[in-house]
Amino acid sequence: MIDIDVLERNIERMASSMRNRGLKLRPHVKTHKTLEIASKQLAAGAHGLTVATIGEAEVFAAGEASDIFIAYPLWITAHHADRLRTLAAKCTIGVGLDSVEGAAAMGSQLGADAGSINVLIEVDSGHHRSGVLPGEVGDVARAAAAAGLNVTGVFTFPGHSYKPGMPVGAAQNENEALGQATAELEAAGFEVNEISGGSTPTALLAGETAATELRPGVYVLGDAQQLELERCTWDDIALTVAATVTSRHEARGGNLRRVIVDAGSKIMGSDRPAWATGFGRLPDYPDARITALSEHHATIEWPQDTELPALGQRLRLVPNHVCLAMNLVDEVTIVKDGSVVDRWAVAARGRNS
Amino acid sequence: MIDIDVLERNIERMASSMRNRGLKLRPHVKTHKTLEIASKQLAAGAHGLTVATIGEAEVFAAGEASDIFIAYPLWITAHHADRLRTLAAKCTIGVGLDSVEGAAAMGSQLGADAGSINVLIEVDSGHHRSGVLPGEVGDVARAAAAAGLNVTGVFTFPGHSYKPGMPVGAAQNENEALGQATAELEAAGFEVNEISGGSTPTALLAGETAATELRPGVYVLGDAQQLELERCTWDDIALTVAATVTSRHEARGGNLRRVIVDAGSKIMGSDRPAWATGFGRLPDYPDARITALSEHHATIEWPQDTELPALGQRLRLVPNHVCLAMNLVDEVTIVKDGSVVDRWAVAARGRNS
Repeated sequence: MIDIDVLERNIERMASSMRNRGLKLRPHVKTHKTLEIASKQLAAGAHGLTVATIGEAEVFAAGEASDIFIAYPLWITAHHADRLRTLAAKCTIGVGLDSVEGAAAMGSQLGADAGSINVLIEVDSGHHRSGVLPGEVGDVARAAAAAGLNVTGVFTFPGHSYKPGMPVGAAQNENEALGQATAELEAAGFEVNEISGGSTPTALLAGETAATELRPGVYVLGDAQQLELERCTWDDIALTVAATVTSRHEARGGNLRRVIVDAGSKIMGSDRPAWATGFGRLPDYPDARITALSEHHATIEWPQDTELPALGQRLRLVPNHVCLAMNLVDEVTIVKDGSVVDRWAVAARGRNS
Repeated sequence: MIDIDVLERNIERMASSMRNRGLKLRPHVKTHKTLEIASKQLAAGAHGLTVATIGEAEVFAAGEASDIFIAYPLWITAHHADRLRTLAAKCTIGVGLDSVEGAAAMGSQLGADAGSINVLIEVDSGHHRSGVLPGEVGDVARAAAAAGLNVTGVFTFPGHSYKPGMPVGAAQNENEALGQATAELEAAGFEVNEISGGSTPTALLAGETAATELRPGVYVLGDAQQLELERCTWDDIALTVAATVTSRHEARGGNLRRVIVDAGSKIMGSDRPAWATGFGRLPDYPDARITALSEHHATIEWPQDTELPALGQRLRLVPNHVCLAMNLVDEVTIVKDGSVVDRWAVAARGRNS
């Protein structure tokens, strides 16, 4: 269930913050995979969309998007090249690169069409996943240009912001890495049109940034990770999972006091960072803890001073990582003031490649 | 990708083991959610299927199944009752119960049709999820009978078997809990037709059991959890995820030596028990470790004595928990001797309720 008022408030808050800071907003739509939400983000001023895969780009290009960035260091085969050509005929397409070999493969597969694809070099700002290290930007950019691709800028994802106490430092790392990568790209003789950063935990932090655009995703729906990182409040959480109490244990063995509800990992997703208090949260019972998750059971330890809910009672659960929950359903129920007003298809669900 | 020879060998091994021990096999099809695999299990001698939800039961009842057990303590509303009536008109339907209140709700919603539904009382054999404790079986059974339901037996899921060193003890707990529950049900004046146990880690353990049927699920495909629990070998793993190396770091900072592949939590699932070596395994590189999983990236630390794979190379990954991986795709590719021979729909994907 998505509360449309909360959703629209989240969209407007991020859009106005970016406007006020003179930054472009290119929301990552892997979070919601839903055309209706992308339309609202574009209407609020997003200048384009970010996706993770060619398959997601295809879904959103069939919608209203005219400028899509695939923020991933793609390895391009003949099949992928055909799909990129088709996409580039419809809208502006940017892709990520982080290796000389990846640039050569992409260029050779695209052949004469290579120039229709914009390339942003990915730099590692501390998350240590994909991305080149400082000093390597020029080499990859020159390989891309030699392969006929159109090098337009640099990007990074400061994913190490997903830890308590880390967002401010990660935002500084992002700023430094983007600044250095921009200098390297300019030194290699390229015009830098786009300097692109991430992430929901860092996007709303004030302060100087080298970025020209930001790509937050989760902000639009909120989740228990953002709540526990203090990057959103309970009032900012738009998506909840409706669950029913199916088993109830007032006291058992020691002082275990808990209910089992019928929402497990196949709807909540099972991301559970070590710092999280559990596998999600309950907005109506903030002291309850989801201590275990099977495929169709969540085990919820109940606070001692609060009455245990009855069998059959409906509870609202907030997933730890909302991007995984959205990817598990074919459609979402849209509510306004507690009433169902619409159902939206999760059009890009499962588009992993 | 599913290797059909491995799949068929797994199906036959479990079926013949159950035959030899005089036990009935009722495989849990939430693992694969696929009609073609269920047909093979039934053809090999399974006397019925186990599912987790009414939605899964509806999919398999439309296939070849004539006897389905929903191994879950259902809370029945009017909507659910209509669906159960429709199911019971097609095939034999059993459901779980673990509370007096659940029995009363189910009976009152089903009304005159309550007797068409078989009920098995769930007992907690040590997993401490749903299920009644010893001493409570009679009360729930009497409430079910008073509500007009047809009480046929008891069941348990020894889920605490999912930990190194635990399967043997969990199988003993299961045996004891089922024995005691059966005695309680008989003492309450019921005929006990079915005594139903779980799970893949315990099902192939030899020895006496109070059970008349077992409900393993994962055995059919295998996964990294079963491998690391030593409940299957590399040769028993039928399902792998094909991934491409998209980023490669020969050495960076200290001695990190790793590749990034384009298979993340949206295809592998993110279950990661504390005892697991990582987020999955690589059958062709058993010493490699999947140390991190984002939505579209797996970070694989590579053994020092093995050449780092090239960018663009395809790798096979084994998910930790195959039930989650199957639930993330609309179809699976079937291979035999390395060639694609078929594609099967994951017909019950996403059927959470």
